[in-house]
Parts: sequence; structure tokens; C-alpha cells
Amino acid sequence: MVDQHIQAPDGVRPPPPSLRWDERPDGPVLLLLDQTRLPAEEAELVCGDVPALVRAIRTLAVRGAPLLGIAGAYGVALAAARGEDVDTAAAALEGARPTAVNLGYGVRRAVAAHQGAACGSEAAAAALAAAKALHLEDAEASARMARHGLALLDELLPAGEHRVLTHCNTGRLVSGGEGTAFAVALAAHRAGRLRTLWVDETRPLLQGARLTAYEADGHGMAYRLLADNAAGSLFAAGQVDAVLIGADRIAADGSVANKVGSYPLAVLARYHHVPFIVVAPTTTVDLGTADGASIEVEQRSGQEVSGMYAPHAYNPAFDVTPAELVTAVVTEEGVASPVTGARLAELCARSRQVSVS
Amino acid sequence: MVDQHIQAPDGVRPPPPSLRWDERPDGPVLLLLDQTRLPAEEAELVCGDVPALVRAIRTLAVRGAPLLGIAGAYGVALAAARGEDVDTAAAALEGARPTAVNLGYGVRRAVAAHQGAACGSEAAAAALAAAKALHLEDAEASARMARHGLALLDELLPAGEHRVLTHCNTGRLVSGGEGTAFAVALAAHRAGRLRTLWVDETRPLLQGARLTAYEADGHGMAYRLLADNAAGSLFAAGQVDAVLIGADRIAADGSVANKVGSYPLAVLARYHHVPFIVVAPTTTVDLGTADGASIEVEQRSGQEVSGMYAPHAYNPAFDVTPAELVTAVVTEEGVASPVTGARLAELCARSRQVSVS
Repeated sequence: MVDQHIQAPDGVRPPPPSLRWDERPDGPVLLLLDQTRLPAEEAELVCGDVPALVRAIRTLAVRGAPLLGIAGAYGVALAAARGEDVDTAAAALEGARPTAVNLGYGVRRAVAAHQGAACGSEAAAAALAAAKALHLEDAEASARMARHGLALLDELLPAGEHRVLTHCNTGRLVSGGEGTAFAVALAAHRAGRLRTLWVDETRPLLQGARLTAYEADGHGMAYRLLADNAAGSLFAAGQVDAVLIGADRIAADGSVANKVGSYPLAVLARYHHVPFIVVAPTTTVDLGTADGASIEVEQRSGQEVSGMYAPHAYNPAFDVTPAELVTAVVTEEGVASPVTGARLAELCARSRQVSVS
Repeated sequence: MVDQHIQAPDGVRPPPPSLRWDERPDGPVLLLLDQTRLPAEEAELVCGDVPALVRAIRTLAVRGAPLLGIAGAYGVALAAARGEDVDTAAAALEGARPTAVNLGYGVRRAVAAHQGAACGSEAAAAALAAAKALHLEDAEASARMARHGLALLDELLPAGEHRVLTHCNTGRLVSGGEGTAFAVALAAHRAGRLRTLWVDETRPLLQGARLTAYEADGHGMAYRLLADNAAGSLFAAGQVDAVLIGADRIAADGSVANKVGSYPLAVLARYHHVPFIVVAPTTTVDLGTADGASIEVEQRSGQEVSGMYAPHAYNPAFDVTPAELVTAVVTEEGVASPVTGARLAELCARSRQVSVS
């Protein structure tokens, strides 16, 4: 894993892609915009093999459910190109983080393409083609989610400009396109209908303060950053028209696992009669996980909470919001509202999702 | 304002007092345990005049509603001892932070004692005596709140050991005694009835992670630290039996202003049918403030939220929880439950509070 600094001196260069495949003379590499170093610097992490990519996933240099799926697929392609055992690589990649369902989906899709090919060299090419297809599909899904989500916002909130609260980071940095929840807010901004994007800091790793603020700033959006604790004051003051978040895994019953802190927002939103909207591609819906209780929630190091008292920390990376607190799930195939298992299954069936069970 | 390092090399010395008055050959000083440097180091800040004390209050070197009252009273005594204009000093001290009602109470009480004295030297002594009396009364109030609070916990939760969630810091560091909400948890610990103290980090200034964890650690309590965001997961998992918090100001209608993040906990507690208990001395009840909307909420610098995007930050220091979400207010004079204006007024009337209106 090598760092490659790409900060432009004049600061006018468009932001680098979150992830890109590069064919180099000494073999292909996967380049990741290192999210642990944003916004202070835009540096790319060069992953030349699967262990480097696994480390990048574990340290959250690359993160966000859809992008993890894409990274996982490219990881399989990388192993195949290097002539390494694809199943071993797939197991290592899938195990890097447990909650985001897309990671396993991307990995299995590239493995299936690899297995379906006639011979070794074709197999490596097939795995790479699968990764590239997933990358492209995810970008398209972003655009479709943005359209569906903005239409839903306009329907729920006919009064004009929207004040939207978001949590964690769900933009270009988590996606092949412009993201999930953030893409909807961005569409509202472009349509002149975003009054304020309230950005939760998102402790402990500050994805909101570091990454969403960075993205919102780059787009010139009207945003304000707040400690997660202050969201309650905004609801109480009637300053939030809707909550928009992403998802790491949506169970078959509509329970939504997302960055820890999402569930308290859902309870606040319900208490204040504010719509709570989840935006995620159908690849995040896991029909194989029956309900919220069956979702494995990753527990992370206490060091992330506080160095000095880390041994005493409780640090779940995600929480689970039951379907009854979710106003709508927006996918690229349309909206589930109310959120029912049947409706989610219908949206998944509609998607051109490649079967990789 | 001078720093005086008092870290003991063997670490076995009892913790220094949060605040103490010291008569020195060149005049009296107020010594404050610098809370901005805890837990990394235990250093005392030497305040030789009122501007130094005002700076210490503004930077939160000294903080917490009851302790601010005591500090304010000593500040008046300091001005009087130095032969400075007491009214000017009082105005500067009262204006240092707007939300905690105790600050103004302590200041006015020392000013009243000063005004009531016959001549200059007696007046300075009277102001100091008032500060010392308040200091002592606050210590006694802590002990009485702890008794009332533990009795209430045992009544609400007869099933044995308690799992208590707390926010911000409400222990010895905010009080002449062992504190407010924390003192109740400590009483439960000493009685063998505290199973877990869940300690919110309390962004943005991490009073929980830095100060409450430090105090809990010092007492050998079973505590676990969490990002504020993770409290929702604890409620959802049935891991919280009660919420215990302090208060910066309680309006006449029972609305409670406390560290930002308290209100979302109240909403979560209500949603999960968990008691939400506020522990505060009667000096924190402000019968002159009619309701929650009349409480001035201090807005602090965006720098506290995030350096890079600070200009875009929203950073209220407190939030307001309406009485209907509060299960009980525990004062040194007894418990208000349900929380009504009439019951709060009754408890205030019972207290031996010196009138300084």
C-alpha cells in the first residue's frame, strides 16, 4: 500500500475519483482516494494486492456500502490478474468488514464471472469486466436514486425549499456515482430546492465533519455542520423537514443497518413527525437476512472513542432501525413506502441484479 | 492566570479539589483544577483577579452549574479583597456564561453579603463568608441529592442492580461535594447496586469521555464509555434502566436546560419507557424564568465542532427538555415527580436558600 499525493497546487482541479483501476507495466493496481486523510489532503492509496486492499477496507480508507461492493469486485479481479487463488482472496475480502452487504455481493459477482469463464486469462478478464460493470451500474443507480428521492421529497414537502438532515457520508465517496442520500440532497440543491443540508459530525470517525462537509463544500451547497448531539435541538426548533440517510444492509423485513446514530435520528424524526428516508441501491437489500436482529453489527476498537479510557469503550459501528420507523426506502428501482418486505422484494426483482447467490 | 502542576509521581494522592480559596502573602487567590487539561494532567489554575476567573469560566477550565455558582461567589470575594468595584466584577462574572443560573445566583449572593456589611473590610470578609457558606451548602446538597436519588432509583427499579446512562459531567468536578447526577450513581455504586454506568462522550467538548470517565475510574465504578450516537443502540437492546443527568437551569414550568444532547436522550427514554431523571440543587431552579422558550441557550464557537469547516458550524452548548419528558427532578429538598411548577416552587421554598433577588 503506497501513498501517492495528488493535491493540486492551485486547488481548481476536480476531485479525484474515489476508486480507479490502473493497468501499470508491472501489473494492475487499484487506486483508492484515502478517506482517512480527507479533507486535509487528497492522496491516493495504491493497492497492488489483496492484503493491501483488505487493510484499506479495515481502516476505512475506502468505505461506504456501494463503494465497498465495487472495491470487493476489483479485489477479486486483482487476485485473478496476479494468478492468485480467487477463492482465498474472496474470503479475505468478504471478511474484512461484516455489516455492509454490498462487499460480499461485489466479491461474489466477480467470483461468479471468473468461474464462468472458459480458461485462466479469460477468467481474469471476466472478473475485471464484472467489476467494471458493477462500477458503472452503481453510477447509474445513483442517478436514478437521486431522481426518485427528489420526487419523493417534493411530494412529501410541497412547501418549496427543503431543510434536510443527514448522517455519516453518502456521496461520491461511497459510490461509483454521486452516492445515495447525498445524491438526493445534491439533486435538490441543483434544482434550487435545498435550503439547508444539516450535516451530523458522525462520531466517532467524523465521516460527516470530514467527508460530507468536504463534498458539500465542493458543490457549493448551503450546509451546516453540527455535533450529533445538537440534532435534537434542530428537531425541537422545527428546523428539519426530512432526514436522509444511506444504508449498509437492509434486511428482508425492511430493518435498516446504517452508521451508528441513525436509529436515534429515526426516533427523533418519529417523535417530531418528520419523514425519515433511507436511500440505497437494491444491492444493499439483503433478502437472505430475515430481520434486524439477524444483522451482524460490527464492533470496532475502543480507541476510536477515546484513547485514555479505550479499554472501557462500547463502540458499535452501526445500529439497526426497524422498518416501522422508516418513512421510505428509495432505491434505483423506485420507492418502498410504507416499507414492507413484499415491496422491497418487488424492487429487488425488478433490478437487473446479477444473481450471485 | 498561572498554571501550577500538581501531578503526584506515584499517582496515589487523592484528587485535588475542584476549587479552593488560598490566602497568600501577596493576597488571596482562587485555585481551580483546570478541567480543560483533565484527564491528561491535574493542574491548578491560579486566578488572582476577576478577569482571570472570567477567562477560566469562558474556556470551561471551571464549569458545571453548581461549581460555577461557587466560583462566581468567590470571584466577588476576590474583587472585594482587592478593593475593586464589586458591582463591575459581578457584572463581568455574571456575563461570562449565560445559561447556568447558578453563576448569577452565587454572584448575587456574595454581592448581597458585601452590601449588607457595615464597612469596607467587613464587607470583603462578608463576601468571602458567603462564598464559603455556599461552597459548604453545595457539598451538603450533593449528599442529600444522592440519598433522594438512590431512593428514587430503588423505587423505580426494584429489580436489583441498575444500568444508568449519563451525559456530560456531573460529579465532584461540578460541585462543592460529589455532584448531582453522578453523585446518585456513585451512591448506587457504594450500595452495590450499580451494574453499569454508561458514559456518553458528550461532543463537542467530551466532558463525558474526559471528566466523567476520569471520575468513574477514580471511584472504581463499572463504567463504559460510548460515542453519543451509540446510546440509541443501548436503549434498543434494553441495556438502559434509567437516564440520570444534571441541569444548568430549570425553568418555573419544569423545562430543563442541560448540555446539548440531553433532549435526544429524553426522547429516546420516552420511546423506550425508561425513566429520565434530572438531579440538581434547588439553586438551579429559576422561578424567574417562566418556561423553556425563555431560557437563553449559549451558542459557542464552531471551532469546537470542526476546525476545517468551523465557519459552517451550528454549536449550541445546551438544549431544553420539556417537563413532560422528565420523569423526576431530584433536588436536595426532595423529588418532583411528576414535574410540575407547583412542586418545584414548593421544593425551592423549603430550601434554606438565601434570597438574593
